[in-house]
Amino acid sequence: MRNSFTLIVTFATVLWAGTAMAQDAAGQNKVSNFLLGNGLEVVVIPDRRAPVVTHMLWYKVGGADEDPGKSGIAHFFEHLMFKGTKNHPPGEFSRRVAEIGGQENAFTSNDYTAYFQQVSPDALKTMMTYEADRMRNLILTDAVIGPERDVILEERNSRVDSDPGGLLSEEIDATLYQNHPYRIPVIGWKQEIEKLNRTDATAFYDRFYSPNNAVLVVAGDVDATNVRALAEETYGKVPRGPDLPPRVRPQEPEQNASRTVTMSDQRVTLPSFQKSWVVPSYASAERTGRDGEPEALDILSEILGGGIRSRLHQELVVKRGIAASAGAYFTGTALDDTDIVFYGSPRGGAKLEEVEAAVDAEIAKVIADGVTPDELDRARNRFLRSLIFARDSQAGMARIYGSTLTTGGTIEDIDQWPERVKKVTVKDVQDVARKYLDQSRAVTGYLLPKTGKAG
Amino acid sequence: MRNSFTLIVTFATVLWAGTAMAQDAAGQNKVSNFLLGNGLEVVVIPDRRAPVVTHMLWYKVGGADEDPGKSGIAHFFEHLMFKGTKNHPPGEFSRRVAEIGGQENAFTSNDYTAYFQQVSPDALKTMMTYEADRMRNLILTDAVIGPERDVILEERNSRVDSDPGGLLSEEIDATLYQNHPYRIPVIGWKQEIEKLNRTDATAFYDRFYSPNNAVLVVAGDVDATNVRALAEETYGKVPRGPDLPPRVRPQEPEQNASRTVTMSDQRVTLPSFQKSWVVPSYASAERTGRDGEPEALDILSEILGGGIRSRLHQELVVKRGIAASAGAYFTGTALDDTDIVFYGSPRGGAKLEEVEAAVDAEIAKVIADGVTPDELDRARNRFLRSLIFARDSQAGMARIYGSTLTTGGTIEDIDQWPERVKKVTVKDVQDVARKYLDQSRAVTGYLLPKTGKAG
Repeated sequence: MRNSFTLIVTFATVLWAGTAMAQDAAGQNKVSNFLLGNGLEVVVIPDRRAPVVTHMLWYKVGGADEDPGKSGIAHFFEHLMFKGTKNHPPGEFSRRVAEIGGQENAFTSNDYTAYFQQVSPDALKTMMTYEADRMRNLILTDAVIGPERDVILEERNSRVDSDPGGLLSEEIDATLYQNHPYRIPVIGWKQEIEKLNRTDATAFYDRFYSPNNAVLVVAGDVDATNVRALAEETYGKVPRGPDLPPRVRPQEPEQNASRTVTMSDQRVTLPSFQKSWVVPSYASAERTGRDGEPEALDILSEILGGGIRSRLHQELVVKRGIAASAGAYFTGTALDDTDIVFYGSPRGGAKLEEVEAAVDAEIAKVIADGVTPDELDRARNRFLRSLIFARDSQAGMARIYGSTLTTGGTIEDIDQWPERVKKVTVKDVQDVARKYLDQSRAVTGYLLPKTGKAG
Repeated sequence: MRNSFTLIVTFATVLWAGTAMAQDAAGQNKVSNFLLGNGLEVVVIPDRRAPVVTHMLWYKVGGADEDPGKSGIAHFFEHLMFKGTKNHPPGEFSRRVAEIGGQENAFTSNDYTAYFQQVSPDALKTMMTYEADRMRNLILTDAVIGPERDVILEERNSRVDSDPGGLLSEEIDATLYQNHPYRIPVIGWKQEIEKLNRTDATAFYDRFYSPNNAVLVVAGDVDATNVRALAEETYGKVPRGPDLPPRVRPQEPEQNASRTVTMSDQRVTLPSFQKSWVVPSYASAERTGRDGEPEALDILSEILGGGIRSRLHQELVVKRGIAASAGAYFTGTALDDTDIVFYGSPRGGAKLEEVEAAVDAEIAKVIADGVTPDELDRARNRFLRSLIFARDSQAGMARIYGSTLTTGGTIEDIDQWPERVKKVTVKDVQDVARKYLDQSRAVTGYLLPKTGKAG
């Protein structure tokens, strides 16, 4: 769990499922992709329901690609991309987006950094021009970097250091991942953010910001021929950057101990816990001959903890009434091994330990007895229903293509995803539960109200 | 704690104290040091009690200096140094040492790698010749490296993977250190050792094995003038290597949660626990304005848990009879922040939790009430008594000079150490206990017999 201790929806899964389906609609939504001469991969997702286009540029670099001691530089750089370039003063790009009634945003994960505008189709070329410009023409001076570092330190302070859940989440990741950089927060450790400087920023920019390390995703009321012409005219002029080595990060060792991470804080009113295991992602499974396991993990987390029809919700919240919440999620879209998480918090007079024991019992039940064919069908149906929502989101579609293509996946992977999920058997679900949900290797986080006693 | 879950003596402390005193003996044992033209630092420790010389070459590189994903290469390289060079076939150096009745060894820590021979003084030049030769002339071929990798994997298998205590120790370090490479085992993660190859070895050798990244320590029946002449004649011929950047490793963030690490194994008969905190080392304290704290931590660990006169032993083992063992140690000789560790295991019908609670109570007592002037005096006296043993070890003296000089310390630091310890006050001891021994940030490891129940 990399973002929030209280995250409870399987966002990535919903989007993935949704967009994998999107192209099936009437054939007209055929997704296409091509490479520019400078190595930029372009994906076009036609979506003609409204006169809107989503323009997203994805870089294949995230927090987990940072050098040791430089944590936060990927996210820091996301901020710097909104500063001035040789051709445009600071803020001009954002003002232009606002003037035409568009929206923009950017985000950094462990595996990618993406920049996003949603505008009317006639503004697409303008967006491409600005985005291509800041790919190489940023002005990186101490005067730009110093104040932005303070902004980021304040962001860290408000999002993490002032939030017990945020702090605990960092400590859980740092415990769960013993070797992989997913252990390090994307926003960066405070003492390392404080030291990031112009040299770091320039080196990062020159190394990672290039057309051959990026994926352009354009979704909306556009056609591929037109997008290609615009892309050639704008991004096509940016010279190819250095060839980057494969993104091979330090991998996890075999884990041999169960671990707990406990934080007590006065601001916490309702205690909660979460239990995590390291499991394969779609990308890491493919690299390591564990094909099919992420699909089974997606179904497993759906059956055990995906929403109000799940076993955990039904048993703990509805039937026994001991939990205010209980569920599970699996983050399959990651370049390397990822996590599956179970969580819960008590209700009424119930104790947190009681909720945890009940969650453990449900996990043990799947390991011992598996799931039923009927549950498997219903879990798949819930995925299908979630498509209805995902299809409505053009940005969601763009996002799943971008996140897949920047984490080792292909358009074919997205195409085939529904079929691969359909192949999951009840045995597959029990097998992954048995293989991965081993209590002697679990990492459990506890967020507790502050009591009088020490600790 | 980087080596063994059951380590119970403050080895480094004993040696440090011992050798700091060594030069006081009758003035004739004046330690001297000088630099060769190629940057090699040489330390000469006269010790004329016996016709023996200890020749140690220390490199300022250890496990914590490795590149990400290359764990184990420092230790791997220690093995490779016993292979053939351009001038001598494999095994010749070791055979020569054995033929003249000498002893040799080598070791790798997080912060340094050292090579060691103990021989009669007339063989010193031969040792220097061989040691200088392998500093640059090793033959590193696949035929050499492949089989040695198997040896190291087997070493890992027997020392760590087959030993529950060894495995738990790795998991504790990986939990205690959230960002610093001390989290990574010196022997290396298995999956990374498996991939170490000739390219890695050659790059490591060329980067770190040079006279300007080494310290030569010669202790024994020698004089400085003679050692200098021999060093010039042997090591002096090795060309200076590349200038290395300062050894700045990723530092620890503020820690905000208490953590536990639990392992159950059939081979465990007596349960045990250890509780660790990250604290300043002598070197890191000096860099970060926390001077005096390591001295106080040394005294604190001595009073609470240094041997049979300590509070923990007296209270838990002698008086209450609930513990088979209980104690503490502090590893002050490290380049970066290090750990202080408390440990215990139950006796008779006592439960492990009871022992842990009793240890916690003793810690809480020091935090609340401090220590007495009498205890402080006695702890210092115990240090002084330990010198009697340390003085008898020429190798121990060489070792403390080498480990200090390769972890950011100076000969002056060693000289002044006894005086600095004498200055520690009862308030200093209470202050470091209060500042660092916070249960809400502790990492506690449990090694338990395997029971029938899960986990």
